[in-house]
Amino acid sequence: MRILVLNPNTTASMTEKIGAAARRIASAGTEIIAANPTSGPPSIEGFYDEAMCLPGLLQVIRDTPDVDAVVIACFDDTGLDAARCLTDKPVIGIGEAAYHMASMIANKFSVVTTLARSVPALEHNLHRYGLAARCARVRSSEVAVLELEDPGSNAYARITDEIGRAVAEDRAEAIVLGCAGMTDLTERLSAEHGLPVLDGVVCAVSLCEAMVRLRLRTSRLGGYAPVPRQKLAYA
Amino acid sequence: MRILVLNPNTTASMTEKIGAAARRIASAGTEIIAANPTSGPPSIEGFYDEAMCLPGLLQVIRDTPDVDAVVIACFDDTGLDAARCLTDKPVIGIGEAAYHMASMIANKFSVVTTLARSVPALEHNLHRYGLAARCARVRSSEVAVLELEDPGSNAYARITDEIGRAVAEDRAEAIVLGCAGMTDLTERLSAEHGLPVLDGVVCAVSLCEAMVRLRLRTSRLGGYAPVPRQKLAYA
Amino acid sequence: MRILVLNPNTTASMTEKIGAAARRIASAGTEIIAANPTSGPPSIEGFYDEAMCLPGLLQVIRDTPDVDAVVIACFDDTGLDAARCLTDKPVIGIGEAAYHMASMIANKFSVVTTLARSVPALEHNLHRYGLAARCARVRSSEVAVLELEDPGSNAYARITDEIGRAVAEDRAEAIVLGCAGMTDLTERLSAEHGLPVLDGVVCAVSLCEAMVRLRLRTSRLGGYAPVPRQKLAYA
Amino acid sequence: MRILVLNPNTTASMTEKIGAAARRIASAGTEIIAANPTSGPPSIEGFYDEAMCLPGLLQVIRDTPDVDAVVIACFDDTGLDAARCLTDKPVIGIGEAAYHMASMIANKFSVVTTLARSVPALEHNLHRYGLAARCARVRSSEVAVLELEDPGSNAYARITDEIGRAVAEDRAEAIVLGCAGMTDLTERLSAEHGLPVLDGVVCAVSLCEAMVRLRLRTSRLGGYAPVPRQKLAYA
Amino acid sequence: MRILVLNPNTTASMTEKIGAAARRIASAGTEIIAANPTSGPPSIEGFYDEAMCLPGLLQVIRDTPDVDAVVIACFDDTGLDAARCLTDKPVIGIGEAAYHMASMIANKFSVVTTLARSVPALEHNLHRYGLAARCARVRSSEVAVLELEDPGSNAYARITDEIGRAVAEDRAEAIVLGCAGMTDLTERLSAEHGLPVLDGVVCAVSLCEAMVRLRLRTSRLGGYAPVPRQKLAYA
Amino acid sequence: MRILVLNPNTTASMTEKIGAAARRIASAGTEIIAANPTSGPPSIEGFYDEAMCLPGLLQVIRDTPDVDAVVIACFDDTGLDAARCLTDKPVIGIGEAAYHMASMIANKFSVVTTLARSVPALEHNLHRYGLAARCARVRSSEVAVLELEDPGSNAYARITDEIGRAVAEDRAEAIVLGCAGMTDLTERLSAEHGLPVLDGVVCAVSLCEAMVRLRLRTSRLGGYAPVPRQKLAYA
Repeated sequence: MRILVLNPNTTASMTEKIGAAARRIASAGTEIIAANPTSGPPSIEGFYDEAMCLPGLLQVIRDTPDVDAVVIACFDDTGLDAARCLTDKPVIGIGEAAYHMASMIANKFSVVTTLARSVPALEHNLHRYGLAARCARVRSSEVAVLELEDPGSNAYARITDEIGRAVAEDRAEAIVLGCAGMTDLTERLSAEHGLPVLDGVVCAVSLCEAMVRLRLRTSRLGGYAPVPRQKLAYA
Repeated sequence: MRILVLNPNTTASMTEKIGAAARRIASAGTEIIAANPTSGPPSIEGFYDEAMCLPGLLQVIRDTPDVDAVVIACFDDTGLDAARCLTDKPVIGIGEAAYHMASMIANKFSVVTTLARSVPALEHNLHRYGLAARCARVRSSEVAVLELEDPGSNAYARITDEIGRAVAEDRAEAIVLGCAGMTDLTERLSAEHGLPVLDGVVCAVSLCEAMVRLRLRTSRLGGYAPVPRQKLAYA
Repeated sequence: MRILVLNPNTTASMTEKIGAAARRIASAGTEIIAANPTSGPPSIEGFYDEAMCLPGLLQVIRDTPDVDAVVIACFDDTGLDAARCLTDKPVIGIGEAAYHMASMIANKFSVVTTLARSVPALEHNLHRYGLAARCARVRSSEVAVLELEDPGSNAYARITDEIGRAVAEDRAEAIVLGCAGMTDLTERLSAEHGLPVLDGVVCAVSLCEAMVRLRLRTSRLGGYAPVPRQKLAYA
Repeated sequence: MRILVLNPNTTASMTEKIGAAARRIASAGTEIIAANPTSGPPSIEGFYDEAMCLPGLLQVIRDTPDVDAVVIACFDDTGLDAARCLTDKPVIGIGEAAYHMASMIANKFSVVTTLARSVPALEHNLHRYGLAARCARVRSSEVAVLELEDPGSNAYARITDEIGRAVAEDRAEAIVLGCAGMTDLTERLSAEHGLPVLDGVVCAVSLCEAMVRLRLRTSRLGGYAPVPRQKLAYA
Repeated sequence: MRILVLNPNTTASMTEKIGAAARRIASAGTEIIAANPTSGPPSIEGFYDEAMCLPGLLQVIRDTPDVDAVVIACFDDTGLDAARCLTDKPVIGIGEAAYHMASMIANKFSVVTTLARSVPALEHNLHRYGLAARCARVRSSEVAVLELEDPGSNAYARITDEIGRAVAEDRAEAIVLGCAGMTDLTERLSAEHGLPVLDGVVCAVSLCEAMVRLRLRTSRLGGYAPVPRQKLAYA
Repeated sequence: MRILVLNPNTTASMTEKIGAAARRIASAGTEIIAANPTSGPPSIEGFYDEAMCLPGLLQVIRDTPDVDAVVIACFDDTGLDAARCLTDKPVIGIGEAAYHMASMIANKFSVVTTLARSVPALEHNLHRYGLAARCARVRSSEVAVLELEDPGSNAYARITDEIGRAVAEDRAEAIVLGCAGMTDLTERLSAEHGLPVLDGVVCAVSLCEAMVRLRLRTSRLGGYAPVPRQKLAYA
């Protein structure tokens, strides 16, 4: 099985980190193709970046046809709906993956993401997926995405503080980390706080494996009807 | 006052029709700049087209700085959030404009749009805006966007039939037309069915005029914080 | 165009202030008729006042037939539905006007109103309009309506403090002022806090102008069906 | 125990019928005072009538102080909130009474009311009470309120037909009759359709008895804070 | 009239206290049969206890056929749906009883229950009943159920503290006590805080009396269809 | 990896069918232990059966400690919350598994279950999980659970008819089969209707495998706190 793990920003070091996390969790027979667009924003922080990464993101999917499933490795799940019109293979966003998984191991979870500017986009997604009622609160740590790539930053301290507040104030039973760049912090944070801490990258990879094994494919009826051939030519 | 009325697809005849509708309704001192991207999909029908039109759409906004407000003239309101991060001038989507206006003249409205593939995107928007409870049903007439440009099509007949069903089955008190290309049908349909029929293009132009007069601007706090300068360079 | 701006309480100084605010924002050709009932409560603070002002409020509408639109200038939007059964001209409440406008320039807004006793009525309206999900919180400043008419009160200080809390605690991106009597504070508060502050009076006047230009009228089907002639005789 | 059963319209024959129904169901020690305002609309059908009956309705409450509880015997529950600010004795609307009772004997219920123009008001109430999710559908029988007073009308036939549709189409497990004037049809309809049919008048009387025995009173904090003495003088 | 007041746990002293509370409030002609299962958990604190008490609970109902109504005297309302399939006599849970009653005397209420582990179950019930929107917050006092049976515990102090926070922070207009074992604290807490404090046991008994007088029975259509005879044999 | 697939009813042929389906989809290293309680109802059809199977269901979990995850193979997800208090290993209900999976491959799905009496329980679950908004409708085929075990019944015909209606009337983009006993019909129905048809058994097995690989465990904070040792003794 081959899974395309698509980092929608252009920061190669982050793609590598995400790919490594995916490979650590993947089953024996699963090949992970980690990729990112060659042009577009170097980090996805808010609505504008979400929009600007889309053509590059969709081009990577079109250029990588021989995969069994696609992970969109941005916590905003940007481009998820559009990608599902391009292929009937499962396409899973890391945000939705973490929300669905958290909903099956906790009554309520809180999200700890990067910047305040990203919070409304996540809240919109939660409403749309129907899982807003399961999320106690979306919190921002005010850690910028690229600070997560800098070992000298105090990113960990700010994230763990915010998790502490989520447990105390929100009665959160689990924490969802709201950025693909936090994938390597999961175990340490979980041990420190004594509750499940979910990273969307590994959740999405595992869900893709499950979908492929179950031979589940995206519906072709309604909103995810295939893009007509002539529309593809305009890309 | 200058209002950019931005048709996100590349079909110039549709841009002209939309521009003409906007000018008919605009106040004396308002100049309408009707524009469309030079590349991208010729019609917006579903999630993929919504995504692919975004860079062109946002480029038109960046290339037209000296306006007082922006109308995004696609009923899916694609790019609305991203555009609001680019400028603090009011940016109004024709979908939201029609929904808000309809909510002030009717207890419940139904939407009649083009193809079934567009229905989920509209339903998502209604949920997000908070107005899903005011919408009795989103209906598709199975008229493609570009059929609306073809005088020989039976588009009118199919749309008016669907409105009849909305009144009879949904107890709709008003109808929102779910495509910018239907802007010239409003009066005839309203007269035929004896209820308000709303076109988002003219609603959005009027709302922009109102916002400019009220000196209301998009908030710079939270989700619509300005795009950092270095992010603009990657566009 | 003539717009009736109807203050439902009997305090003439407040009617004047509201009328002046309306005239400042009105378009060149718009005449503002500011009026209030001759009997009823001097301020609308809670459910009982809302009920007791209704016959006077509706009588003013019946006595002022030659207008193009009506603004109900009480933030509780009392009598809105009843008024819409009396005339098919647009009738806009200042509460709904501000909520709808705020929803198009901010992801979330908070309301700062007068007394705690008014909060549930506003929360009910927000639910009914469908916009509760867009409102972070309805806050009371514990400033009574008529204190707003007293230059010696510390009303401004208490309102600005409450806005500070809304930004810090609710993550509000915009503020809606929850009383017609606050109409003259908008600009100062907006400048002080660096975010949009909306007054319903001017929002409603602008929306009325927009509706009249768009020739939109209240639906006559369903809940706003015209009052039968014999029912009018009982008033 | 004395319960004021207040018919908000001025049709004395309806007040008598409602009073008789209340007395049939009341406990041994309960005295029913059936009353109606002396001026106002002869039937409550829609938003305008709801508003116009309020001063008369509230006056009856003020003129009848020595009661232990109040039933507002109009299915729209008009004036309920205002009345609760006038007295801390329990005030129960027949609409809410029936909805709450139905929620404890059925998973879902449908409402069968009089005219289509009354449907939105009932839907708003259901949302506000929080019980909209328990109501499968609000249906109108197109029987006018005063037709229920006319033995020669075919009101029963139209109501029973609508109940049949509610069972078949809505999967309703119980039926709430949406007008005080239907109080005498309950048993016959229940027997005919084999499911619980609830009349709000008797539900409300029984709930008042329960509240009085439990010494429960309307909260004086927040939205139902007592009307200040000087406000009562303006009535 | 005979009402079975069924304490689902096996602690006889609690059954006695509950029975005494029920008798104090019952009408003259009402006989209270207080009972508990002979095996099962001694207190219901969370999901596991809720499940384990069910066969015993349902057996008591089957062994007590000659009653007119049943109260399930556990605030989690465990077994409510199953019990309604066993008999068409009214079955009322003390949680739902208190929520419905509180909704008719306050705009919003908060719940003060025992342990944090019980909070999610109560939140699920509130959602299901449709009354989540009426509840400001479910709070835990961290008083274990059996501490309520111990006069030497500081249970009262912790509960009254939590009520203080509910009034200050949640803007609660009424308090619902979230455990049958708190039934004897109601009046003292209400007097101390100056707002209605509701105990589900007495609310449910009164609602049963009302239902019996109204001859209301649980619907036999849909979810509460009677258990087939052969299924009863497997119990 | 060992997964307990627990059929909560006592029908061994159904346990075998479910176990076989689980084994077909399980990964190479996964051992499926299919089991059912030795006493309790032979099929779960509605609230009473759900309650009566619980002690047996929970006993099987306690008697099978050396597994890595548990599937509750009843579409009502009965006992799910209680089981999560017994073990921190993942416990997945087949209903929730199918709903979550369907939400990632379709905008909206409909459920086709067995009897009308089971519909409210499924609707309650959907609300609780937060996924009610993703479900267009819960439909019953009026096929009893044990008819699915009878090759001579016309169960397939009735189920496929109901799916046809779901596509035509609900605009469902995917179908969830609402009974573990339908697990062998999935592929044929999917091929016949040209849309994804999901069986909860295989979805839940795959989700368990994913959770185990991700080392995700049920939260021990809040509602799923471990059952105290002394409580286990009462079972």
